[in-house]
Amino acid sequence: MSNPLRIAIAGMGTVGGGVVKALAAHGDKLAVRAGRRLRIVAACDRDESKQAAFRIDTWLADLNALAHAEADVVVELIGGEDGPALTLVEEALKAGKHVVTANKAMMARHGADLAALAEEKGLALRFEAAVAGGIPIVKSLRESLSVYGVPAIRGILNGTCNYILTQMESSGRSFADVLKDAQRLGYAEADPTLDVGGGDTAHKLALLTALAFGVRPDLDGMAVLGIEHITPEDIAFAREFGYRIKLLGIAKMTPQGFDQRVQPAMVQAGTPIADVDGVFNAVMADAREAGPYFFEGRGAGEAPTANAVIADLVDIARGNVGPAFGVPATSLVTLTAAPSGSASSPFYLRFQVLDVPGVLAEIAGHLAKWRVSIESMIQRGRAPGEAVSIVMITHETTQGAVAGALKTIATSDKVIAPPCMIPMEAK
Amino acid sequence: MSNPLRIAIAGMGTVGGGVVKALAAHGDKLAVRAGRRLRIVAACDRDESKQAAFRIDTWLADLNALAHAEADVVVELIGGEDGPALTLVEEALKAGKHVVTANKAMMARHGADLAALAEEKGLALRFEAAVAGGIPIVKSLRESLSVYGVPAIRGILNGTCNYILTQMESSGRSFADVLKDAQRLGYAEADPTLDVGGGDTAHKLALLTALAFGVRPDLDGMAVLGIEHITPEDIAFAREFGYRIKLLGIAKMTPQGFDQRVQPAMVQAGTPIADVDGVFNAVMADAREAGPYFFEGRGAGEAPTANAVIADLVDIARGNVGPAFGVPATSLVTLTAAPSGSASSPFYLRFQVLDVPGVLAEIAGHLAKWRVSIESMIQRGRAPGEAVSIVMITHETTQGAVAGALKTIATSDKVIAPPCMIPMEAK
Repeated sequence: MSNPLRIAIAGMGTVGGGVVKALAAHGDKLAVRAGRRLRIVAACDRDESKQAAFRIDTWLADLNALAHAEADVVVELIGGEDGPALTLVEEALKAGKHVVTANKAMMARHGADLAALAEEKGLALRFEAAVAGGIPIVKSLRESLSVYGVPAIRGILNGTCNYILTQMESSGRSFADVLKDAQRLGYAEADPTLDVGGGDTAHKLALLTALAFGVRPDLDGMAVLGIEHITPEDIAFAREFGYRIKLLGIAKMTPQGFDQRVQPAMVQAGTPIADVDGVFNAVMADAREAGPYFFEGRGAGEAPTANAVIADLVDIARGNVGPAFGVPATSLVTLTAAPSGSASSPFYLRFQVLDVPGVLAEIAGHLAKWRVSIESMIQRGRAPGEAVSIVMITHETTQGAVAGALKTIATSDKVIAPPCMIPMEAK
Repeated sequence: MSNPLRIAIAGMGTVGGGVVKALAAHGDKLAVRAGRRLRIVAACDRDESKQAAFRIDTWLADLNALAHAEADVVVELIGGEDGPALTLVEEALKAGKHVVTANKAMMARHGADLAALAEEKGLALRFEAAVAGGIPIVKSLRESLSVYGVPAIRGILNGTCNYILTQMESSGRSFADVLKDAQRLGYAEADPTLDVGGGDTAHKLALLTALAFGVRPDLDGMAVLGIEHITPEDIAFAREFGYRIKLLGIAKMTPQGFDQRVQPAMVQAGTPIADVDGVFNAVMADAREAGPYFFEGRGAGEAPTANAVIADLVDIARGNVGPAFGVPATSLVTLTAAPSGSASSPFYLRFQVLDVPGVLAEIAGHLAKWRVSIESMIQRGRAPGEAVSIVMITHETTQGAVAGALKTIATSDKVIAPPCMIPMEAK
């Protein structure tokens, strides 16, 4: 057996601790898989009590020392788009060390440049843990699914949002209520913005897109909506129409250009992606004649994420150190984005209106002006003069047309809350 | 860019033709992924008209010449457990060539020995195309999912059976009728025995088991049942109980030992594996703290299978040539099999009986003698004296106990057809 693979870990939180524990528990078996031992030779964390907790021999005081430790691989588990994590990864690569990271924000923003640096040096830059936890979707897109090309990819990439939507559906409770519970249970952060606002999904989608389409990860061109405005009423109406609401990351080639966005969408009940419940993640990859493919698994948590980090380490131990995105970073392209608003589908629309004569005519008139035609409608009566919900499903139209109509409709004095629009995804 | 990877292909049927076409159509893009060109330098098929059809420059008259061609990799697409395919693969490995194969029968029977030969020579032996077509389950088990161990795996591994069961359910027609249609549509072979009898699923299960558990592929210890005895009535009753019937390959560790079998099973409606329809395949892998994982995709066909072959070729081009089963073949073990009949679950039982006094008492008496207790029962009345179906769901019990009771019950003169038993899988 060859020399051990020497590993330096930055960040000893849930995932770092999980890696240490799994290597201790399964080290012999992993050495057989890797053809050599995986040995943690150094670690670093702001919380120095972790040294004793995880029995690390060489504890380093700062990240700079870690980047230059006597190690073959640096594992970056600090997080953060820029700052210390980015500096560490750059320094480690410059110092000739392979890098494994779980940092989706950094990779989404700087992944192409970091990959170029790694490839220049003949080093691996691996990030399976950054997307969809334990689902081996990074490796599958990089090494298995891309023969015929992947013209479309859709994913449920944020377990917090999927947990909240699942709970809202089963309990009928509001977003705010369920979020509070999720925070208490540890399924949502104290500041949940990055999760519920769609930003975390955007980071992960940018990485999947890079792998599937051979593009540079690109956050700037991406429209991102979260789930804060989804109501129990929307979820109940969705069910009535045979749909469920999921926060999706979507990337696809369209006749209008490349379309990459994060938004709540209605997905048809009974399809694999609609049945993904709770904290689970899932990815559906079109693959032309060879597809579609569907993957589901735990999107986060100690063991799934540690599993992903260690699988990357085993790859490196075996000398499997090809380009981070499957093709050389220098060959990653930038696709022309589809014009904003050109995304086309049926839409679910909900209006909170006063139940007074003429309100439906007014809404229908504005929709007609934007050539949005209605496929079906539900209006539930209440006492005259009180607020009611009007819900419509449109025929296929563009997001731009719907947004245009809704902008005018929102200004009506009969409409008492911002209208809600949710695209309905094809099966 | 390095030298091209020189490929010799044996067998130019659907999959071989698909590989040639895909390399022609996507060669430039694949060269970027592989870091070198994938070049077909020789081919061989009994049908010599294929040479012109696929524009192969060097057409070899026999497999022995192919094994010794000036090539880096031999792709074996002939099929067959022994005979020419096995000889070709052995010769190719001995001659220092990597091997990619889609041959599940050969790999299930001789995989461990062939892997040992390959590893002795430092060569790759790859078989992604042998299991579940385009689903990258071989690579995922080999390289991604095994950190915490995989104590259980279940799969829908035969598209023909899943197509037939799906059609039987949607149309209410008999197995024999639907099989005839499937044969006409090309979804079933003229001799369907290997598919509908479970043998093909057994081959694939043996390979998944080897990857997941680190065991030698073993067909001899495997109980194998097919779907020939499933009736539309069983499928309809399953639906009434909230289940669907699928042909599953199952491997798991139990307190009684290692349990590996192929059989129709009831799976709970609404779970991912129950929703797999038509020719699709799926694999559910437990992975202790890190799991479960679920994968779904096309199980066969030109593009999914060619995709799998080419992904293996790209791996080899990149120098990713680790052991075939993820661990050295010499370290593959043989687990002690659970005693026959020890598999434990609730069971669905169906009896065709004469509607005469005492029949239920007789059946219930025999079940009680074997300590099989009944959870629920359906009996539909017909005219007195005519045949009726009695359907029961048992509480959890062993396959041996049920089989014992059914053997006695079958001898009753009130029971007019062999009783049917189908285990009900846990979620």
